[in-house]
Amino acid sequence: MEEQAPFPGEVEIAETVPFYDTDCGGVVSNIAYLRYVEKARTALFAALGMEPAAMMGTGLFPVVVRTEIDYRSPARLGDGIRVSARLASVEKVRATCVFRLDATAPGGEPRHVAEAVQTVTLVRMPEGRPQRMPPEWRGAAD
Amino acid sequence: MEEQAPFPGEVEIAETVPFYDTDCGGVVSNIAYLRYVEKARTALFAALGMEPAAMMGTGLFPVVVRTEIDYRSPARLGDGIRVSARLASVEKVRATCVFRLDATAPGGEPRHVAEAVQTVTLVRMPEGRPQRMPPEWRGAAD
Amino acid sequence: MEEQAPFPGEVEIAETVPFYDTDCGGVVSNIAYLRYVEKARTALFAALGMEPAAMMGTGLFPVVVRTEIDYRSPARLGDGIRVSARLASVEKVRATCVFRLDATAPGGEPRHVAEAVQTVTLVRMPEGRPQRMPPEWRGAAD
Amino acid sequence: MEEQAPFPGEVEIAETVPFYDTDCGGVVSNIAYLRYVEKARTALFAALGMEPAAMMGTGLFPVVVRTEIDYRSPARLGDGIRVSARLASVEKVRATCVFRLDATAPGGEPRHVAEAVQTVTLVRMPEGRPQRMPPEWRGAAD
Repeated sequence: MEEQAPFPGEVEIAETVPFYDTDCGGVVSNIAYLRYVEKARTALFAALGMEPAAMMGTGLFPVVVRTEIDYRSPARLGDGIRVSARLASVEKVRATCVFRLDATAPGGEPRHVAEAVQTVTLVRMPEGRPQRMPPEWRGAAD
Repeated sequence: MEEQAPFPGEVEIAETVPFYDTDCGGVVSNIAYLRYVEKARTALFAALGMEPAAMMGTGLFPVVVRTEIDYRSPARLGDGIRVSARLASVEKVRATCVFRLDATAPGGEPRHVAEAVQTVTLVRMPEGRPQRMPPEWRGAAD
Repeated sequence: MEEQAPFPGEVEIAETVPFYDTDCGGVVSNIAYLRYVEKARTALFAALGMEPAAMMGTGLFPVVVRTEIDYRSPARLGDGIRVSARLASVEKVRATCVFRLDATAPGGEPRHVAEAVQTVTLVRMPEGRPQRMPPEWRGAAD
Repeated sequence: MEEQAPFPGEVEIAETVPFYDTDCGGVVSNIAYLRYVEKARTALFAALGMEPAAMMGTGLFPVVVRTEIDYRSPARLGDGIRVSARLASVEKVRATCVFRLDATAPGGEPRHVAEAVQTVTLVRMPEGRPQRMPPEWRGAAD
């Protein structure tokens, strides 16, 4: 992108770990991390021009076909969680999103707690037909 | 219903408390109880002839308009949970379902952990038009 | 509380409805509303001086003993959700919290979608001993 | 294992897709698959001798350090889901579990909808010290 970046290729969301995301081991459960990732990805696609509220009208939906999550260290009740989501690459019919999750206890330093990668396609519903990735997204990817 | 009861008015489901339903207080979180109730209600409506798999075709959906849950005592990781769901009353456009949740630790006695009441309507989608309750359900209710 | 109210008796949180909170009927599922309520209640108790991150240290936890939710109208994918949580009354060993949920589609007007009431006790863990409500909370309640 | 197989290396669980696991695209949401996987893994570890109900006493917990999920085709409301979980390999301080998810609509044929791999360690709490994998699990792995 020489002159302008019409689509930001990276967004960040913030959460605070609630009770229901912890488990009896005292730490945030696996499933909660995926929820944080999904929220960040939704924000990333909204930044790329795909607003969730418009999808029921356009019939064009992002569909995750693969998720990888590496859990590095535990997050705990009340930690602030920051998830950065980045469009890492765009191919003809799929895009790769990369996520980094950091947790910060009140008064503490951020700790790298997890990272994730998702492969996403675009599908036209209700036919379920795969669509090409918007070519302008390539400029947003690293 | 004089002679036969074609619809059972009560069903029971069983769960085992997984990690992700507990929280860092060491007990099952509030939200998990509602998930158990939803599962039992789905089974109750299936027994009444409303199979979930058929709803996308019929366009007729049960819609919960009110939920009450009383939490009596804590359930814990690995407890067996039994939820009994009962059609308690059927009016013209709404039905009332009553739920009782018991938890049993391995080798222990069942403890009454929660109870819930839901008010349900039937709605025809996509118009969102409320439908009358099937009159034959009255025989299933207490 | 003579002159000042050191504790705000009302807080508000905002969410955007993600995919995973909708169901195949096209609307936000029951369980998601309870999650929004839990998040708002956590924020309310933090404002009252009970920070989640400190609870594992103090051993003092709020415990919900009753939840009521009335679902007024549907919320949808991408709607902004605002939940206001208010400390409505404080008795010796229990407090009542009242929640109001409004949803706003992009470019639309807020719609009242649900309301909830929770009864909460304070429990000292691991003994599970109920505690008195802090008397200063009475000033925060309506 | 020549003569006896004290630990089964494979278990299977069954679920029926409830409303709350579908999203407004009409299909089961990503997060629900991970919940099914977690349930199957819990059953697998119970079969290997690690009963969840005993973990709070032993302080020995399985901790997932990596999850991969490939979503092959959509599952829908009311589908029966079968998850088979298999202990695929056991190394000194980690084990690999492999999951296969099939969905069956009422009256239909099973479809392969997803597969997952998890890497799991054993941790002694509250110190968080990693433990060796039980050597007898090697016989249960393929």
